[in-house]
Amino acid sequence: MSTVAPPEPEAGTEARRHGGTGPARPRRLALVASKGSLDGAYPPLILAATAASLGWEVGIFFTFYGLDIVNKRKNRRLKVSPVGNPAMPVSVPNLIGALPGMTAAATAMMQGWMKRAKLPTVTEFLDIARESGTKLFACSTTMGVMGVAEQDLVPGVDIAGAAGFLDFAADADVSLFI
Amino acid sequence: MSTVAPPEPEAGTEARRHGGTGPARPRRLALVASKGSLDGAYPPLILAATAASLGWEVGIFFTFYGLDIVNKRKNRRLKVSPVGNPAMPVSVPNLIGALPGMTAAATAMMQGWMKRAKLPTVTEFLDIARESGTKLFACSTTMGVMGVAEQDLVPGVDIAGAAGFLDFAADADVSLFI
Amino acid sequence: MSTVAPPEPEAGTEARRHGGTGPARPRRLALVASKGSLDGAYPPLILAATAASLGWEVGIFFTFYGLDIVNKRKNRRLKVSPVGNPAMPVSVPNLIGALPGMTAAATAMMQGWMKRAKLPTVTEFLDIARESGTKLFACSTTMGVMGVAEQDLVPGVDIAGAAGFLDFAADADVSLFI
Repeated sequence: MSTVAPPEPEAGTEARRHGGTGPARPRRLALVASKGSLDGAYPPLILAATAASLGWEVGIFFTFYGLDIVNKRKNRRLKVSPVGNPAMPVSVPNLIGALPGMTAAATAMMQGWMKRAKLPTVTEFLDIARESGTKLFACSTTMGVMGVAEQDLVPGVDIAGAAGFLDFAADADVSLFI
Repeated sequence: MSTVAPPEPEAGTEARRHGGTGPARPRRLALVASKGSLDGAYPPLILAATAASLGWEVGIFFTFYGLDIVNKRKNRRLKVSPVGNPAMPVSVPNLIGALPGMTAAATAMMQGWMKRAKLPTVTEFLDIARESGTKLFACSTTMGVMGVAEQDLVPGVDIAGAAGFLDFAADADVSLFI
Repeated sequence: MSTVAPPEPEAGTEARRHGGTGPARPRRLALVASKGSLDGAYPPLILAATAASLGWEVGIFFTFYGLDIVNKRKNRRLKVSPVGNPAMPVSVPNLIGALPGMTAAATAMMQGWMKRAKLPTVTEFLDIARESGTKLFACSTTMGVMGVAEQDLVPGVDIAGAAGFLDFAADADVSLFI
């Protein structure tokens, strides 16, 4: 997995002190994953795996469409839309992109790129996350909005509200909404 | 509003010290709201309301399409697009999504979910923000770009540039671009 | 460039101390630019130019579609999609937006707004970034995914992995994923 997380031991063992007087503790990364597309799922999963490999403490908070990433019925078939995305490497006119089958084609294309770049799949990244101790949270508020039940989630995901995320992020070195 | 912000008094009263020697001060959340869709407006509004209920100091900087959230003519009718969004819970083929009326249908659907989850509306969230002392800023640079005038904004919104946001965010515990 | 970065010398010279005992150092802004549309490119470029003008140390990490911003063949013709974007100031029904030519029309429209607001172009912003010492990084992992080679990049861009971003962001005052 060297393409994802080139190990940098010095950075990984570097710890932060509170005001120079408190005890050393690991760096912390707090992520919100709000997108449910294949190309929206990869950035938080890559950052989480990289940070964990460097010895950081990592938490990902899945919310809104991002709940699909930890939805066991959906996370093996996240899609890429060719429509409304003028930056797709192979440019697709919107009208063509709207034709039946084009979302499947764009999805297959990006899956091929991910494979070529030797990136793990979404489910493999979730395995890496669990093995490395990354905390996975499903947002309780938006589970209600999106009609997601606890039994829809992959194993190892806890349920937390926005307050839980803020509490975790308050002490993070880096917090990102993706 | 328990679904939005389950009160956690311990977290709310927790304060940070500068290097362990300065005076205690409340946590601070700095948000950029850059999206003008209904599903793009909810995350910053939910996070802001939750943080404020925990005693955090909160500022939201509305920029680009996010200016619609504080635009008094537009913020009661923010929309959800069914096109280019393969993660919509009820999957809509792009060609069908492009038909007239489908944006209205997707918007009505999500408004129904928000109501079922007992979430406040966008305008109710803005009332909560003002009542809780959340600072609301409209981005001066992008107001020019998007053709938004001061009188288009809901009451209680100040105008600030990117420098104003950076100044506020520099001392924040959590900063997120949404 | 007063609309972009109104100079605030006091803020610019303000420095942070580590726990009140270490030496003063400048503020730091760490940005991830993940979008390749014209409207997705402006927020990181505006924030970077503003922060640099205030004396901050700035790094932008270009990843996924955001690589287009530093792609010398593509960054002069970044586009705006009228489809799947219900917050476009001039609302375009999705079916109309899908017609050939509408992406070009939306792009021309936004370029006009940027010009009216006296904002630099994307390539001018990159010049400003280089002149002000802003660090520009292309994400090595997603270069592989998106098929971008080193010679595709504009001058002055270094290649770094996610670990490099985390290392830079760990000491940032503000980190944003855009």
